[in-house]
Amino acid sequence: MRFTSEQRLDDGVLERGFTLGEIPGILWTPESASASAPVPLILMGHPGGLQRMYPRLVTRAQHSAADGFAAATIELPGSGDRPRFAALEEARADLRRAVGAGEPVTDEIVDRLVLPLVELAVPEWRTTLDALLSLPEIVGPVGYSGGVISIGVQLAVVEPRISAALLFAGSFVPRVMFEEARQATIPLLVLLQWDDEGNDRQAALDLFDALGSKEKTLHANMGGHTGVPQFEGDDGGRFFVRHLK
Amino acid sequence: MRFTSEQRLDDGVLERGFTLGEIPGILWTPESASASAPVPLILMGHPGGLQRMYPRLVTRAQHSAADGFAAATIELPGSGDRPRFAALEEARADLRRAVGAGEPVTDEIVDRLVLPLVELAVPEWRTTLDALLSLPEIVGPVGYSGGVISIGVQLAVVEPRISAALLFAGSFVPRVMFEEARQATIPLLVLLQWDDEGNDRQAALDLFDALGSKEKTLHANMGGHTGVPQFEGDDGGRFFVRHLK
Repeated sequence: MRFTSEQRLDDGVLERGFTLGEIPGILWTPESASASAPVPLILMGHPGGLQRMYPRLVTRAQHSAADGFAAATIELPGSGDRPRFAALEEARADLRRAVGAGEPVTDEIVDRLVLPLVELAVPEWRTTLDALLSLPEIVGPVGYSGGVISIGVQLAVVEPRISAALLFAGSFVPRVMFEEARQATIPLLVLLQWDDEGNDRQAALDLFDALGSKEKTLHANMGGHTGVPQFEGDDGGRFFVRHLK
Repeated sequence: MRFTSEQRLDDGVLERGFTLGEIPGILWTPESASASAPVPLILMGHPGGLQRMYPRLVTRAQHSAADGFAAATIELPGSGDRPRFAALEEARADLRRAVGAGEPVTDEIVDRLVLPLVELAVPEWRTTLDALLSLPEIVGPVGYSGGVISIGVQLAVVEPRISAALLFAGSFVPRVMFEEARQATIPLLVLLQWDDEGNDRQAALDLFDALGSKEKTLHANMGGHTGVPQFEGDDGGRFFVRHLK
């Protein structure tokens, strides 16, 4: 892990760009974080395109820092400045074509789009976690917050250092992920934008139902894909305070 | 409205039993409430049986008082010490028979059970509201919190003094209520216990979908009918602070 930039934000949060091999990422730590007072970490998932997502990510990170957490994110495979994958691009184009033509998005397209992404991204998140937890100012437990929900579900299942996850239901879910979801045991908070046109609401409800965790909560709101109300963001903060502190 | 009992609880909350005509009820007011500093009011719905429900109601009222709200409840028609209605009793017996025999609960039974209850209870709540708002220590805006969800939905639609409602999805919903729900405009928070066996989850989701309010939120949790987690109770408190203060 190599830090490539560093700036102090207005609220004292330290923002550091990094690369891990070829993967770019950003780490935010609260002013108080130090080797003698290390802070728990929240991994922040997103749909890909770090630069485009930056304004929303930095806001989420600053809220997390105010709660006493470090926050980190990495670019998704095949997004932003990272090399494209032909198969993923093709699946994306097929998805757009289907949606544009008003046709149903088939399981076959969803599998081709999401499964390779999960397979590529999950190991990258775990390697990133290794690197982040080796920093003296960061300590477990760790939370995962955000989309892509299939990545979050698989991380929740396979990565024992992740103790709680807040999942954004806003992307297509391959059928096989419902089986994987049954193996989840950690506390989960699922955010669903009820009237999000690009979201398959029934699939999100089915996935929530499938999640094996005894402590799982669904919070559904109006307002479209990016319209999660501020009070739910605040409540997500309280979710991590309950489970990571 | 005639006060029939009065006691000061440990946390300073004043609990007063009252009758309004033949309807028994309870009013809780925070220590601070006075004619010169009146407090907003939360009407607390419940499934009927004031004495049986008292432990849970007083806990909810004390939380509301800590947030600076008065809270009040009345006995449902045909419940507790109130005279029984033959038609309601018959519908209840038919419901029990159907559930006991593992048969589906028909719309016809649900209509016979819930519609008369709504028709009787809603005017009683409104009369109670008249009386409560005439007390110098209580002032609008008013919230409604609890079940029976069909009563809460109709109150949210017909009673302009109610500014926000927290609805417990835990009772059968007559088809006609879905039409009524579309007329709702006030902020709503619906609590759903996801794995509540006595609850029709799909009906609750359909009702949430039907609600006309632009600001509506669904919070679903595990843990059975009475297992609403403490953090959701706290969040319900914040919902009313946002909308009644």
